[in-house]
Amino acid sequence: MKGEGAAAALRQLPTGVCLLGILTARAEPYASTVSWVVPLSFEPPMLGVALEPRSKTLALVRAMGDFAISVPRAESRSDVIKLGRSSAEVADKMAGVTLGTTDGGLPIVAGAAGWLACRVVGEQRVGDHVLVIAEVGAGWVADGTAPPAWSYWGGSG
Amino acid sequence: MKGEGAAAALRQLPTGVCLLGILTARAEPYASTVSWVVPLSFEPPMLGVALEPRSKTLALVRAMGDFAISVPRAESRSDVIKLGRSSAEVADKMAGVTLGTTDGGLPIVAGAAGWLACRVVGEQRVGDHVLVIAEVGAGWVADGTAPPAWSYWGGSG
Repeated sequence: MKGEGAAAALRQLPTGVCLLGILTARAEPYASTVSWVVPLSFEPPMLGVALEPRSKTLALVRAMGDFAISVPRAESRSDVIKLGRSSAEVADKMAGVTLGTTDGGLPIVAGAAGWLACRVVGEQRVGDHVLVIAEVGAGWVADGTAPPAWSYWGGSG
Repeated sequence: MKGEGAAAALRQLPTGVCLLGILTARAEPYASTVSWVVPLSFEPPMLGVALEPRSKTLALVRAMGDFAISVPRAESRSDVIKLGRSSAEVADKMAGVTLGTTDGGLPIVAGAAGWLACRVVGEQRVGDHVLVIAEVGAGWVADGTAPPAWSYWGGSG
């Protein structure tokens, strides 16, 4: 009962939802919806993303080192839901999804409200996930993106 | 220019906004607004919160070990903004703020939509912040809390 409450509350913790985009060794775009993403440092700019140990996403992140985190607009809802499925369960979850790219060619959600180009600098096993720590080398925010689209409190504090 | 873009995009990454509540050694309630919070594991339930190295919040978290993360409703906006100020800048930022408590007596935002009672299990310096890693021992979610109040995509994926 106690553990149940903890897990239920953890599932309801407010988080953003982003797309993690990466190029495979064959330069094919791959993307996955991630919601356990957190800024970790301003100087240097760094963020963390917690991934499932056996996920294709973590395997690619480890193998390639460079990935993009992009922020979807509401219009991309169906793609975000589609890309949230596990590759283990869906033969080709990228089918029918059109992605954009960062300046450096990393895959991002189409019509992104913003993106961050990241390079892995470390990882740490935490419970049943792996926290990947990355430095942000470049970033972009769409003009006129209203704060409420990004965060519960919209940076009003 | 490149670094500027990275920092700007990092500031716009969608995150939730929570209250971190803790009891001082004299059992006085203290609370601070935090937005760099992230779930890290379901089994065991764990989360991370990145704090400023010289903040009173980190000093208290290190000294006491137990803290609560609570999720505010929109009605608590003014308290959340007030508690987002630095203790170094405001003599007594707790003045005029009424808090609730977890089952275990840790401070939470009044009328919380949910809370998680956490115990520190580790920390890691990441850039200019310290990532505190904690296990969630207990949690609670208010009945009828609509998912959109919590997260950008509301768990619809």
